[in-house]
Amino acid sequence: MSASSEQPIVAPITDSITETDADELKSTLQLCMLPGLGPRTLRSLLDYFGTPEQVLTASGPQLAAVHGVGPKLIHTIRTATHHVDPNEILSWCREHGCRLICRGGKDYPQGLEDLVDAPPILFVRGSLDAADEMSVAMVGTRHASTYGLQQAERLSYGLARAGVTVISGLARGIDTAAHNGAINGGGRTIAVLGGGLGKIYPKENAGLAKAIAADGAVISEYAPHATSRAGMFPQRNRLIASLSLATLVIEAPDRSGSLITANLAAEQNRTVLALPGPVTSRTSRGTNQLIRDGAVLIQTVDDILEALGPMNRPVSTADGNEVRNPAELKLNELERQVLSAIGETSTPIDSVIAASGLPAHRVVATISVLEMRRLIRRLSGQYVSRV
Amino acid sequence: MSASSEQPIVAPITDSITETDADELKSTLQLCMLPGLGPRTLRSLLDYFGTPEQVLTASGPQLAAVHGVGPKLIHTIRTATHHVDPNEILSWCREHGCRLICRGGKDYPQGLEDLVDAPPILFVRGSLDAADEMSVAMVGTRHASTYGLQQAERLSYGLARAGVTVISGLARGIDTAAHNGAINGGGRTIAVLGGGLGKIYPKENAGLAKAIAADGAVISEYAPHATSRAGMFPQRNRLIASLSLATLVIEAPDRSGSLITANLAAEQNRTVLALPGPVTSRTSRGTNQLIRDGAVLIQTVDDILEALGPMNRPVSTADGNEVRNPAELKLNELERQVLSAIGETSTPIDSVIAASGLPAHRVVATISVLEMRRLIRRLSGQYVSRV
Repeated sequence: MSASSEQPIVAPITDSITETDADELKSTLQLCMLPGLGPRTLRSLLDYFGTPEQVLTASGPQLAAVHGVGPKLIHTIRTATHHVDPNEILSWCREHGCRLICRGGKDYPQGLEDLVDAPPILFVRGSLDAADEMSVAMVGTRHASTYGLQQAERLSYGLARAGVTVISGLARGIDTAAHNGAINGGGRTIAVLGGGLGKIYPKENAGLAKAIAADGAVISEYAPHATSRAGMFPQRNRLIASLSLATLVIEAPDRSGSLITANLAAEQNRTVLALPGPVTSRTSRGTNQLIRDGAVLIQTVDDILEALGPMNRPVSTADGNEVRNPAELKLNELERQVLSAIGETSTPIDSVIAASGLPAHRVVATISVLEMRRLIRRLSGQYVSRV
Repeated sequence: MSASSEQPIVAPITDSITETDADELKSTLQLCMLPGLGPRTLRSLLDYFGTPEQVLTASGPQLAAVHGVGPKLIHTIRTATHHVDPNEILSWCREHGCRLICRGGKDYPQGLEDLVDAPPILFVRGSLDAADEMSVAMVGTRHASTYGLQQAERLSYGLARAGVTVISGLARGIDTAAHNGAINGGGRTIAVLGGGLGKIYPKENAGLAKAIAADGAVISEYAPHATSRAGMFPQRNRLIASLSLATLVIEAPDRSGSLITANLAAEQNRTVLALPGPVTSRTSRGTNQLIRDGAVLIQTVDDILEALGPMNRPVSTADGNEVRNPAELKLNELERQVLSAIGETSTPIDSVIAASGLPAHRVVATISVLEMRRLIRRLSGQYVSRV
């Protein structure tokens, strides 16, 4: 699969970097892509030795001094060149329009920084955007019902129309419907893979992956040719959860991977949302139980936007608006106008009226709407502020 | 409709009362059944004058001194004998095996005492039982879906099997399914009517009402021949809510009478439960919204029993067990045995083992089950107590 020939979406990362940068990148790849070396042990090694280059040239006894490093891993590190060929990875990336984004770099997603085991490198086809911070993960079972598939598509479509990025895992079932809904809604969607970008799984979603990369991104923390293994999906799920403000579980039977994603989201202080379903449906049993356990029940796109709450910092949307709270995305022109006249601190309603240039009764009515949408708070009869 | 001829379920109340009691009962009926006199104003009148007899013999100016009493009501009270014939009511009750239960009497349901406007008199066909304190109200739309009807019947059946009384309103749809489920489960069910016992509404439920009275009760606060009017249903709903430990809404569209019952239940510190449903179903929109607003999502009978929590005081069930927490109703013999050895205060596990006469490992395993069912609490590794 090669999207790059028609649309070189982004320049490969190596375009603008110097020879030294390139060497450093190669060492980083060499080390980070080693089989059997997880993000936590990698972190320990880098903390101990300083740079990937120094880890790769360390002796066996030096490596053994690091917590969690055993004889098998020492052997792997000492024979790193047998396992990983950074040149091959880089040329694959060049050929397939794939960028590498390193932790600490400016394009590295803010949300991943919350992970103790954040991936040191992300492989990205397509582009990550500042507006992707305003995103919702939508996940669910591969064995979805018609109800689940329709709702995933409907809600994802609505989120995309509102300007929210939809993040999912490119799996069959709910994931596929979520990505499709966002594409049909003309919005951005990000697929996080459980294997390498060169091994799209399931194969039938290769075309979907291409469509996602065109207006969003397909990303992976694994080397392009890494094949998905069972253990990689929970790893992938933690990325999905931390990239998003909230995780919405559409359908999940008891004991489903989606429930694990929901747990990871909760652990990372992300809001957990769930779609209710009939108690007679096996695939709604997990989501109904999640709601029993405290997840927010979602019926509409508005419910989702309301649940996202205010953001840590304002985000610029594609249409150039600055949004502080995703619920603003559904406002009409009048509501937006009145909201923009209300500050973070106590603002007199009189000055909102003056600033908006609108008739007093319309401003007052609009203030009630904004209050109901939990975007502003009435401090007293005469004062309001943002929430 | 006359059930009494085949089965004189209970003796009419007048059987055992003296002449003076009978006069008092007649005055009470005369006053309480007056049209246009609500429970709150009735309360004010009784507080002011002392007895129904004194209210009925008061002069116009004396009556006018009571808050909420206007010229129209004064006229009605002064011409009470034109509106209500207590002898007719009493003879109807005698003929139809209907008891009158007065507020303050020993059979008056404890739960109703929480109402500021508790009905002064209840007309009862069938019997009220001490075990009815362990009851769940099950309500929902008259225009129910197959899903709602099946779930109402399934959950009601399960509650009845467990020994919980199911309370509902004899309406079409969910109410009918709830009563039927309880009857099929061999348990008790109570129908609270929005009109008089002599005017069963809807008429098609006359047979059901008879079946309910046989092993439960059909009750009303209205005179036997009172026809249901729109305003009487919210009044009726407040009785349903306060007779029950919790109100379970099975299906309700937005703005449904069932949601009013749920609100009344919440106001009276009763737990509100709701069955989730597909967001595509109009009749689940209200229940899903209730859950968003904090109602407990219910999937199973166990979920309901768990939500009821511990009771104010233990209740004796039909099989002679004393139950402190409805969740105990689903215990097996072993679990019951271990639970009975655990006290309200800190109990050493060693003495639970000794008291039960069971092998230590079975007791320890059973303690974990009881803890999971939230019936007991582990105070430390060695001590447990009831929740």
